[in-house]
Amino acid sequence: MSLFPSKSRLAHIVFESDDKASKRFDVVLLVLILLSVLVVILDSVSEYHQKFGTFLYAAEWFFTAAFTLEYFLRIWLSNKKIGYVLSFYGIVDLLAILPTYFSLFFFQSQYLTVIRALRFLRILRILKLTEHVNEAQILVSALKQSRLKIQIFLGSVLTIVLVMGSLMYIVEGPSSGFSSIPRSMYWAIVTLTTVGYGDIAPASNIGQFIASIIMLLGYAIIAVPTGIVTSELTAAKNRNEAKLRHKICHNCTLQDHALDAKFCKSCGAQLDG
Amino acid sequence: MSLFPSKSRLAHIVFESDDKASKRFDVVLLVLILLSVLVVILDSVSEYHQKFGTFLYAAEWFFTAAFTLEYFLRIWLSNKKIGYVLSFYGIVDLLAILPTYFSLFFFQSQYLTVIRALRFLRILRILKLTEHVNEAQILVSALKQSRLKIQIFLGSVLTIVLVMGSLMYIVEGPSSGFSSIPRSMYWAIVTLTTVGYGDIAPASNIGQFIASIIMLLGYAIIAVPTGIVTSELTAAKNRNEAKLRHKICHNCTLQDHALDAKFCKSCGAQLDG
Amino acid sequence: MSLFPSKSRLAHIVFESDDKASKRFDVVLLVLILLSVLVVILDSVSEYHQKFGTFLYAAEWFFTAAFTLEYFLRIWLSNKKIGYVLSFYGIVDLLAILPTYFSLFFFQSQYLTVIRALRFLRILRILKLTEHVNEAQILVSALKQSRLKIQIFLGSVLTIVLVMGSLMYIVEGPSSGFSSIPRSMYWAIVTLTTVGYGDIAPASNIGQFIASIIMLLGYAIIAVPTGIVTSELTAAKNRNEAKLRHKICHNCTLQDHALDAKFCKSCGAQLDG
Amino acid sequence: MSLFPSKSRLAHIVFESDDKASKRFDVVLLVLILLSVLVVILDSVSEYHQKFGTFLYAAEWFFTAAFTLEYFLRIWLSNKKIGYVLSFYGIVDLLAILPTYFSLFFFQSQYLTVIRALRFLRILRILKLTEHVNEAQILVSALKQSRLKIQIFLGSVLTIVLVMGSLMYIVEGPSSGFSSIPRSMYWAIVTLTTVGYGDIAPASNIGQFIASIIMLLGYAIIAVPTGIVTSELTAAKNRNEAKLRHKICHNCTLQDHALDAKFCKSCGAQLDG
Repeated sequence: MSLFPSKSRLAHIVFESDDKASKRFDVVLLVLILLSVLVVILDSVSEYHQKFGTFLYAAEWFFTAAFTLEYFLRIWLSNKKIGYVLSFYGIVDLLAILPTYFSLFFFQSQYLTVIRALRFLRILRILKLTEHVNEAQILVSALKQSRLKIQIFLGSVLTIVLVMGSLMYIVEGPSSGFSSIPRSMYWAIVTLTTVGYGDIAPASNIGQFIASIIMLLGYAIIAVPTGIVTSELTAAKNRNEAKLRHKICHNCTLQDHALDAKFCKSCGAQLDG
Repeated sequence: MSLFPSKSRLAHIVFESDDKASKRFDVVLLVLILLSVLVVILDSVSEYHQKFGTFLYAAEWFFTAAFTLEYFLRIWLSNKKIGYVLSFYGIVDLLAILPTYFSLFFFQSQYLTVIRALRFLRILRILKLTEHVNEAQILVSALKQSRLKIQIFLGSVLTIVLVMGSLMYIVEGPSSGFSSIPRSMYWAIVTLTTVGYGDIAPASNIGQFIASIIMLLGYAIIAVPTGIVTSELTAAKNRNEAKLRHKICHNCTLQDHALDAKFCKSCGAQLDG
Repeated sequence: MSLFPSKSRLAHIVFESDDKASKRFDVVLLVLILLSVLVVILDSVSEYHQKFGTFLYAAEWFFTAAFTLEYFLRIWLSNKKIGYVLSFYGIVDLLAILPTYFSLFFFQSQYLTVIRALRFLRILRILKLTEHVNEAQILVSALKQSRLKIQIFLGSVLTIVLVMGSLMYIVEGPSSGFSSIPRSMYWAIVTLTTVGYGDIAPASNIGQFIASIIMLLGYAIIAVPTGIVTSELTAAKNRNEAKLRHKICHNCTLQDHALDAKFCKSCGAQLDG
Repeated sequence: MSLFPSKSRLAHIVFESDDKASKRFDVVLLVLILLSVLVVILDSVSEYHQKFGTFLYAAEWFFTAAFTLEYFLRIWLSNKKIGYVLSFYGIVDLLAILPTYFSLFFFQSQYLTVIRALRFLRILRILKLTEHVNEAQILVSALKQSRLKIQIFLGSVLTIVLVMGSLMYIVEGPSSGFSSIPRSMYWAIVTLTTVGYGDIAPASNIGQFIASIIMLLGYAIIAVPTGIVTSELTAAKNRNEAKLRHKICHNCTLQDHALDAKFCKSCGAQLDG
């Protein structure tokens, strides 16, 4: 056994996660990702920046160097190099190192490296969370199923925002913060979504009356996406359970049997499986 | 083939959307609508108004002239002229041009032209989005079904708003912004809908106690419209799926049979399959 | 026919709503209620109070006198006088006139007369809204069914509010508005219900961290009452539809037939009713 | 009958709640808990602290002494002393007295005694609220069932908060309150959960545009946990109702049969009724 593993062994360690060495590699990687995100966050706090600025700057470049090395290692080890570069993980890996290099030219762009938090998705592979993945698929499929309804919904919301924003711009004017239609539309979104910062708020009587109507509208509208997602989730859940549940009786062809049924509930014939 | 198309050909181009010429007409129209809305929005930003005010003013009148021409063209081409004028699209088309003319007499009314965003609904016809329409119908039908429940709900909300608003007017008084019952009712709506601007907020202990109760009430109340819409959407979905699943009787063509039905429930004829 | 109706005829006009005279009485009453609520609201706006104060004060006393007369008329006409006084409508009728008399002794109590808005519930009787009542009963029954779950939920919310409010009182202190535990609890309710006025907001790092956790908690918690009400509404809806739907076949005792079924789907025998 | 009850009788009074003496003990305990929480709350209001500070301080120590006594009494009376100390109620009982003792060393820690509100859970035992417990179990089981979905959901929310917070830190900068990434993340949570204090709000055009997108995202995202909990609650409810409805096989005592089952699905024996 040589000191350096073979290329194929290295590829296994880097890309798989099913033995001791490859698992250790992934855990070290996750810790590095976590630390590097932490360094970026701490560096943004002026207090820490003043005290530990030099150290954090060095750490940031150390992590970026390590991730750059790892990126090229992955390309070198891949059988389908282009495939890796263009894959979801490949793009995330690239985006995770670019901002630090850009920061040499563009002020503050290094803070965009927090996007490397997305690299944490690799944790799914380590934990072999098939159950998680299944649950996530139900969620995603429910959202996909309701895509059309959500599009219609978003279209209606944006039209309301445009018309109501313009109306409030005319009614309230710049004195109470409605200084342009885009800003009024921002206010309409803040109100419809019930966020309500209060940085812009109607001051006139008519403005408050129109705002009240928008709020009650938002109150009714917020029920729609919830209703859509819920009914899709319920349907997805039912489909899932129905798939698991049904057996068919070969004697009377009744197919509405429970999972644990051994005999047909209609004719008493034995069920298989 | 002459340079100008015949009137019937022109009517086809303007009102249908099933060949190259008519599709191109609709796409150009949508782009014009989009641009005209953009012009109105930009004109409201004082910075752009000062720089490009004259150009935006000219563009606004150009679009209005174009849409006015198109409006009269549609009337001229319609077989049922009154029918078009009074139809939904006819009224929207008129509302989309009126505000600019009014702006000659009323200050700022030109911003109401954003209502021409509604003309964008024509996109549904171009894309032949029958599926979208079907989804939208489920949404609309679910909302219609829950109309009565929503009316009761709105009535209760308005009564709570009236009583709680008056109470807070007495308890808090003008010093903390509750300067009249209408303004207190505005605050109650801001609070019940969980928008919470904070432009008016209770300052006294009793006021904050009553406000807490209103908030917890609103917390419970927000569940009601969501519950209504969700249960209607689920029911609509089930009805839809049930329709797809059912068998058709070849004797009386009734198609609303359950999966396990062996005989037609309407005429008693045996069902196949 | 004398000029004055008999006492029994008068009782019919006042308490019933099924012929011309009694309907007209109810409509006049509703208009008076609406006007009297409007007078109270307008009187609270200082601008109108200064201009029309004397007139509004007179109107307020006129309406109160009219409703007082009506209240004693109803007592005189009732067969069960105590029964009317203690009934829901009887109490509302009394509460609708008391505040004005109290206003002679207690400053501003006349604004509590807005409670006469509750008298508007009589509209249900005029419109004979049996359908409304049925819908309302489903809502009320769904809320009753989930009463226990809502109690547990409210108990949990109040415990979270108490513990988190105290914690924030210790962490933030009076400098940023958390001047006492009751005020901190008010803040916790404002936050948990996602109202978020911003009149009190955490300023320290630890305070903002704890607040973030409370918000995410509230995000999860808001799902619970919605889920409870929705599942109860869905169940109530299903029960209602199931009741309407099921017929029993006298031949094979299968009871799972659709409402419009004329023949048993299992054996083909004719169904009755 | 001696003046002092025997140790076993005392244990019964303290730990059970099924006769007159033990019920009285529990009621007195609950009143003491309520009063002690009230004392802590009142002491935090500076007005009351100045007026009744000495009395409230004495009351606080009286309650703590009483609960300390009770705590050691419970340990002494328990058969499994370690078991009680480490049980949920044992830990709560300890946490309910510790803060007062700590307040001798750490300023203000006495306010943490509000945690003794948790001792109120004992009320469940007094009221023998088996129904409550059943309802609570449905709630808890529904939440447990959706644990995986909620974890995925929380992970997505935190990633959005991290990325969007960093973006806003770069775009807005310290001038409008986005003074560090942690603070920007706090703002992102305030916005996503629709709390919206307004203590930090975007001021630039790009910032308001990005904030609008976050809000619309939050609008869609808020539908997910509600959908999850609702579909789980509906499923739990259905399972519960299905259990009640099903028939029991007298041959093998399996009780999970459908309403229309004629033969036991486990052993094939005929079912009656």
